[in-house]
Amino acid sequence: MGMRHGQTRDLLLIRGGTVVTGQASLRVDVLCGGVGEILAVGPDLDIPPSCTVVDAGGLLVMPGGVDPQTGIGADEAGFALTAAALSGGTTTILDTMHPDSGRLDGAWRDWQHAARHAHVDVGLHMALPDSSTAVLRQMDSLVTDQGINAFHLSMPEGLSDRDILKLTSHAANCGALCMIEAQNAQAVAYLRAELDHAGITGSEACLLSAPPQVEAEAVGRAIMLAGLSGGPVHVGPVSTIGATEVLAQARLRGQRVEGHVLAPHLVVDEAVHDPEGDAATDFCITLPPFRDGTHRRALWGGLASGTIGMVASGFRPAGAGGNGVVDGLAQRMRVVWLHGVRAGILTAEEFVAVTSQAAARAFNIYPRKGAIMPGADADIVLWDPDAQETCTSGLYAGITLGGRAVQVIRGGVTVWKDDMPCEGAGYGAYVPCPAFRPRLSERMRMAAHLSMRDDEI
Amino acid sequence: MGMRHGQTRDLLLIRGGTVVTGQASLRVDVLCGGVGEILAVGPDLDIPPSCTVVDAGGLLVMPGGVDPQTGIGADEAGFALTAAALSGGTTTILDTMHPDSGRLDGAWRDWQHAARHAHVDVGLHMALPDSSTAVLRQMDSLVTDQGINAFHLSMPEGLSDRDILKLTSHAANCGALCMIEAQNAQAVAYLRAELDHAGITGSEACLLSAPPQVEAEAVGRAIMLAGLSGGPVHVGPVSTIGATEVLAQARLRGQRVEGHVLAPHLVVDEAVHDPEGDAATDFCITLPPFRDGTHRRALWGGLASGTIGMVASGFRPAGAGGNGVVDGLAQRMRVVWLHGVRAGILTAEEFVAVTSQAAARAFNIYPRKGAIMPGADADIVLWDPDAQETCTSGLYAGITLGGRAVQVIRGGVTVWKDDMPCEGAGYGAYVPCPAFRPRLSERMRMAAHLSMRDDEI
Amino acid sequence: MGMRHGQTRDLLLIRGGTVVTGQASLRVDVLCGGVGEILAVGPDLDIPPSCTVVDAGGLLVMPGGVDPQTGIGADEAGFALTAAALSGGTTTILDTMHPDSGRLDGAWRDWQHAARHAHVDVGLHMALPDSSTAVLRQMDSLVTDQGINAFHLSMPEGLSDRDILKLTSHAANCGALCMIEAQNAQAVAYLRAELDHAGITGSEACLLSAPPQVEAEAVGRAIMLAGLSGGPVHVGPVSTIGATEVLAQARLRGQRVEGHVLAPHLVVDEAVHDPEGDAATDFCITLPPFRDGTHRRALWGGLASGTIGMVASGFRPAGAGGNGVVDGLAQRMRVVWLHGVRAGILTAEEFVAVTSQAAARAFNIYPRKGAIMPGADADIVLWDPDAQETCTSGLYAGITLGGRAVQVIRGGVTVWKDDMPCEGAGYGAYVPCPAFRPRLSERMRMAAHLSMRDDEI
Amino acid sequence: MGMRHGQTRDLLLIRGGTVVTGQASLRVDVLCGGVGEILAVGPDLDIPPSCTVVDAGGLLVMPGGVDPQTGIGADEAGFALTAAALSGGTTTILDTMHPDSGRLDGAWRDWQHAARHAHVDVGLHMALPDSSTAVLRQMDSLVTDQGINAFHLSMPEGLSDRDILKLTSHAANCGALCMIEAQNAQAVAYLRAELDHAGITGSEACLLSAPPQVEAEAVGRAIMLAGLSGGPVHVGPVSTIGATEVLAQARLRGQRVEGHVLAPHLVVDEAVHDPEGDAATDFCITLPPFRDGTHRRALWGGLASGTIGMVASGFRPAGAGGNGVVDGLAQRMRVVWLHGVRAGILTAEEFVAVTSQAAARAFNIYPRKGAIMPGADADIVLWDPDAQETCTSGLYAGITLGGRAVQVIRGGVTVWKDDMPCEGAGYGAYVPCPAFRPRLSERMRMAAHLSMRDDEI
Repeated sequence: MGMRHGQTRDLLLIRGGTVVTGQASLRVDVLCGGVGEILAVGPDLDIPPSCTVVDAGGLLVMPGGVDPQTGIGADEAGFALTAAALSGGTTTILDTMHPDSGRLDGAWRDWQHAARHAHVDVGLHMALPDSSTAVLRQMDSLVTDQGINAFHLSMPEGLSDRDILKLTSHAANCGALCMIEAQNAQAVAYLRAELDHAGITGSEACLLSAPPQVEAEAVGRAIMLAGLSGGPVHVGPVSTIGATEVLAQARLRGQRVEGHVLAPHLVVDEAVHDPEGDAATDFCITLPPFRDGTHRRALWGGLASGTIGMVASGFRPAGAGGNGVVDGLAQRMRVVWLHGVRAGILTAEEFVAVTSQAAARAFNIYPRKGAIMPGADADIVLWDPDAQETCTSGLYAGITLGGRAVQVIRGGVTVWKDDMPCEGAGYGAYVPCPAFRPRLSERMRMAAHLSMRDDEI
Repeated sequence: MGMRHGQTRDLLLIRGGTVVTGQASLRVDVLCGGVGEILAVGPDLDIPPSCTVVDAGGLLVMPGGVDPQTGIGADEAGFALTAAALSGGTTTILDTMHPDSGRLDGAWRDWQHAARHAHVDVGLHMALPDSSTAVLRQMDSLVTDQGINAFHLSMPEGLSDRDILKLTSHAANCGALCMIEAQNAQAVAYLRAELDHAGITGSEACLLSAPPQVEAEAVGRAIMLAGLSGGPVHVGPVSTIGATEVLAQARLRGQRVEGHVLAPHLVVDEAVHDPEGDAATDFCITLPPFRDGTHRRALWGGLASGTIGMVASGFRPAGAGGNGVVDGLAQRMRVVWLHGVRAGILTAEEFVAVTSQAAARAFNIYPRKGAIMPGADADIVLWDPDAQETCTSGLYAGITLGGRAVQVIRGGVTVWKDDMPCEGAGYGAYVPCPAFRPRLSERMRMAAHLSMRDDEI
Repeated sequence: MGMRHGQTRDLLLIRGGTVVTGQASLRVDVLCGGVGEILAVGPDLDIPPSCTVVDAGGLLVMPGGVDPQTGIGADEAGFALTAAALSGGTTTILDTMHPDSGRLDGAWRDWQHAARHAHVDVGLHMALPDSSTAVLRQMDSLVTDQGINAFHLSMPEGLSDRDILKLTSHAANCGALCMIEAQNAQAVAYLRAELDHAGITGSEACLLSAPPQVEAEAVGRAIMLAGLSGGPVHVGPVSTIGATEVLAQARLRGQRVEGHVLAPHLVVDEAVHDPEGDAATDFCITLPPFRDGTHRRALWGGLASGTIGMVASGFRPAGAGGNGVVDGLAQRMRVVWLHGVRAGILTAEEFVAVTSQAAARAFNIYPRKGAIMPGADADIVLWDPDAQETCTSGLYAGITLGGRAVQVIRGGVTVWKDDMPCEGAGYGAYVPCPAFRPRLSERMRMAAHLSMRDDEI
Repeated sequence: MGMRHGQTRDLLLIRGGTVVTGQASLRVDVLCGGVGEILAVGPDLDIPPSCTVVDAGGLLVMPGGVDPQTGIGADEAGFALTAAALSGGTTTILDTMHPDSGRLDGAWRDWQHAARHAHVDVGLHMALPDSSTAVLRQMDSLVTDQGINAFHLSMPEGLSDRDILKLTSHAANCGALCMIEAQNAQAVAYLRAELDHAGITGSEACLLSAPPQVEAEAVGRAIMLAGLSGGPVHVGPVSTIGATEVLAQARLRGQRVEGHVLAPHLVVDEAVHDPEGDAATDFCITLPPFRDGTHRRALWGGLASGTIGMVASGFRPAGAGGNGVVDGLAQRMRVVWLHGVRAGILTAEEFVAVTSQAAARAFNIYPRKGAIMPGADADIVLWDPDAQETCTSGLYAGITLGGRAVQVIRGGVTVWKDDMPCEGAGYGAYVPCPAFRPRLSERMRMAAHLSMRDDEI
């Protein structure tokens, strides 16, 4: 994987643990060093001279988590909170920048400036405000020059079907994919107005204005449109059984589509939307609302079956003064461990897949991220599988989560230990996401389109 | 059912046939008279004095067909062609008027003027160009004063999701339903532009620019939106397996939704879209394109299962200089008879349901139309079940159709016989469609909405 | 419809009510007489001499209910309880006889003897114990000579897939249909043994040994097998969302399949299966267990969409010493009225469809039963739509039901009034169910089978 | 991974190729040696002394294929044909032994004796003839002592639902999984008898006696039964859209179920079943019949979405005197390469997943098999991605396949090169498949069962 940060690190040997990757669990040791990468993986590795030895006895040794979508943006203070991610075992985040205008280049510079304060490694998804020629042109240079291979399309913010068609098509041509936040904004606005009229505001209105069928419709539409334009597509967050089924059906027809779920949707019930609650401090401001057990079971089934590939933290600093972001980043993996692995729904290998490997693969940074193999970045979490704790405040109040990041290594350096950040841990690095191979030429694609049987709905 | 046309007709006794309704087939006689209604139905009715006796031996005696959606509009010449409907056993059409502007009242007057030249009875669906306050206000008076209980919403012509929400909601409040022609206009336009760019124009472009998944998406969206607004809804035409399944699923969840298919979609293959063809004369100009066998089988299954309730002729005079309308109106019932009943897919009773009874019920004119019972309008077709003929020109060229309207009675008067219109048959009447009971008040509906479980996607 | 009971009845005119049939609601009067049939239906009928006039002001006038499946058998005492059916508006039941052995002829005689004590009209479904040649031969004569057109196949009692194939095929050949009680008996027995082993017995074991997926599997298999043999088929009772969807999918593919639900499954929750309960007195002995709200909502959706065509009472005298039968027969229509019509799920016309018309049509006794039209049997219920009552005991304890049979007329004679049976009401008549037209010959069917596309799963 | 064959091999360095695993494609070198394992993987590895260097320039370096199910049994001659597998890039097969009786131990010895003649490494699935106590007891020892972790259950050979419940439950308890060949044997026999009666025999009868819906039903039933018993399950071969959807739905509900498809079903059309053909030499004797394009597209979608995890060769020596086995083993990977990867349906990584990695993971021999990483067995194929050839005889006659195994290494030794086996390549080794962690105790499982919501169908 070549040079990483340009600076040689001390050798570090993790011994006696069980290495868990997306594929297998093995009793092997891991040697880190060089410029922050994994040097060797194998049983009973010899201890080199001048090497720090970490005893991982009784612990799982897993790739540091990769959070596929955060929403910090050009916000230094927000990035300062990312130490919370380390505390939960996450060492890389892929953040989304929403430009104020169509000036994507400026947005890129602002974000880059803020992201220097991240405690984790960071990659970037750029949100696209419209499908103007100027935006299309800037997409090209962001992909080619800046290491951005995913663009965020927000239907709630008003992108039309025509915009989605143009943007997914153009993204595919320049080797990027689109992440679509799917929602029927007009329907939500209509319901919100009706609820206002009926005197129903506050937290309950968050729930009632975004009923499940509205999400399912929008996810289906987004996938259909991307299918027409021929581009790969990622949808999320999905929070409903309907959206999960739509995703499964598209995949079953062979369409290239992935999706993510937000960790809190896996465990928080719709009852959190208190009819007496205050919308201003409510958790749902930037999320789909929470759902009942039928939907949660479907989301877990989506993860277990590979239909929903990955779990994001899903918080923005806007929510409740930053506490949301801390909770979200910190608890993402612990939600999945207790309620997924310990509940018998996921294997430990699948845990690694949904918390790091799948995101790394989807955004083309695997095996640099999401893997434990020679050459990969030495981003490693030592995980105590038996820890459990019941949260006492915040969104997860009253919910028990499990697993614990005993020690977290980022780029070969221990950055979290004994429940606190390590001194001198420094900041994370920018992770450029390489372009995908551009799709077939227009002409070939049209030919393919023509031969597509029309019963392939 | 009360006075009909104000003028007493001669008595007419149909003897010796098999009366087929949507529910049963019975060997009974039918006596017509009064002001054009059915006076008695029963076995071996006595022959009253001064009564014309029609021998229906070997024939089926069925309600005259009700075509749920034609597109003639304010076009006298178009209505002059409706004698073709009589030739095929259809005695009532429900026509759609597309106003040039938001002046619905003027459109109503223009249409009414033209419709006087109809050879069949006619009701009206008014198309709505937008969801402005002026339009909403005119909807009220059309329902209250003019006997219009259905409004046509055309997504291809640009109605947004917001428009659909407002219009379906308002229609429900004033006792009307909305018929939504569902299509994703932006997707079709995008594909059309791509095809143009690739040099693919002509008939094939009609097919390729409206692939099945686009229709399925739009039908699903239309149904979802109507579900949110709480209004009953009718979708159509549906031409694909995907749209049929979407309709079935919505009905299975208990939503009030009906739909129709166009007769030609039941038998014409996509191969009719000749790559060498000329778009200008092509059949698809005003239709969804034709599909392959997978879709046709699904449409038949939709009819057999009651998912798709009714069959429309689906032609507009614009298509190929009026021949389209003639073919469409004339052959609608014969398509269903041979390829549905004779093929073992539908029973004779189901034939009556899908060609007349269901439309009459859906638009609240049953049992005046679509029934053979005392009090119903004496609109009756004597049907030879064994006739077959292979079409030699037009859209159905090369396709064999079956059944034959031996004699057609409209309002107690024989208007078609010996394969020609009867002299002095006169014109049909306007059929006002009574308003439905308005739905629950906004307040009650919201309460219902709130208690709706969110897994009811 | 010809002679009925051979004895001329007094004239009876029902005035001022709203006649509701499966198709429409009309303000018309109904004149009954002759040998117990309806003589005339129309607005403002003249009062003939010597005619009893019934004032139906404010009431609905509906066809007497037809219960598509009861399980009384050759049990005089059981039939003595059928006055309960009258109390709930049901005037016809189709009972099932389970022969002790393969001697169907003897079973027919025994049943016929017992059924003379029925207070309602009765038809018969004969259960088939095996697919031996002797049984096949007796099927023929029961159809031809005894007016039996439906055979009951019980998978719980051990019929194999091979039996089902042979019996549905033979039934189709002799003009009968099969009603399949679908269950995976081996799976239920396995679970029951496991539960016993775990010390879980009693009422809860009824629930846990018949989980929803087991029913869905068996219903799907029954439908698939009947599809192979080419016979029409009726499945039921269905109690789960899975079985409902399976039924919907088969119908959507065009297969001729109908089904029924038991009234209690529409409103009774699984919580009735008390872990502390005593299996010996439990309600579930002869039923599928009760389910949670997800399933109940699906069953209602099945009724609203026409997927599940009819509602049966579903009780056998065995259950709790006869009280079950009384409750079941008495409350069937009231369950559907309050929780279906009043809840806005079904229209009044659909109420008539699912409580009488559909069963009459399915078993080929329409319009003799299930209709209000001249010539139909004068089986009529005058229904108070506004009555409501909360049950205080039995299976429906604590559940409010609605509607009330104010007066019940069977064969033109008032048999129930003022909440009690009328003196001298006498007994009901046997209702022979005419054979269906036998299906295509084997040879033609095979040809059809061969041309069936293999994507028609 | 420890000692393998006990004998130290020469060092072998594969340079300059692109290593493709189930997760990623990397430009790295691979060093093999030791007792036949991979020693190092990395960019630009140094050449050790006494090392053979293989130039893989322009080639893909992939794990040797793992065929998840062959049917050779205790047949020396059959194993002699497995050189064909090497020619197609497959280095490991998992064979199935069908005991003549309930003597599994004897069957194991017979098979082991024959399997010594295999040119590939071999593991074993033991077929189970019944669910007797004797069979259950022998399962235990086969798992514990002989390295067997999968049992084959054949519904065509008469296992009942009760057998499946007992066997899947017992297998789960002893750390094994069941592979169910799902078919409704009674339905197939019924149809076969009908076809015989109609004079339809020969190849066409193979097709017509096993219609798609029969397979879908049986696959659904097998999965449902395994779900009840709580055991993991593998189903296959699946050949229909219906079975694929059933599998997808079960996975989406979170059930642990995998499946496989046979390579020929991916490309051979149903037209191969010649009505004039001779059943005795027909290809379908031991397979589900071939299907039309709708089904083939669904199978490819199943692979692309991960629903169907792996591709087997699916031939038995019985078919056409051994040629079937040769074709099947030789062409398995080439079918998937051309029609999957080159057609744009699968990525190269997914190719490795479905041809080797998934099978290795499913049968608990990953990463010994199916991986390229230090410690894995040095089973490697050097693959020319651009080769294409049209088959001229056998099942694939007229079909173009693609990719070519330029050089095949088994256990660190080159065994196939220049389109022929290498001299002195010797035989393959037995691959014991370690038991899975036994499932939860009965008691815990029952508790889990009890808490399972009944809407989880």
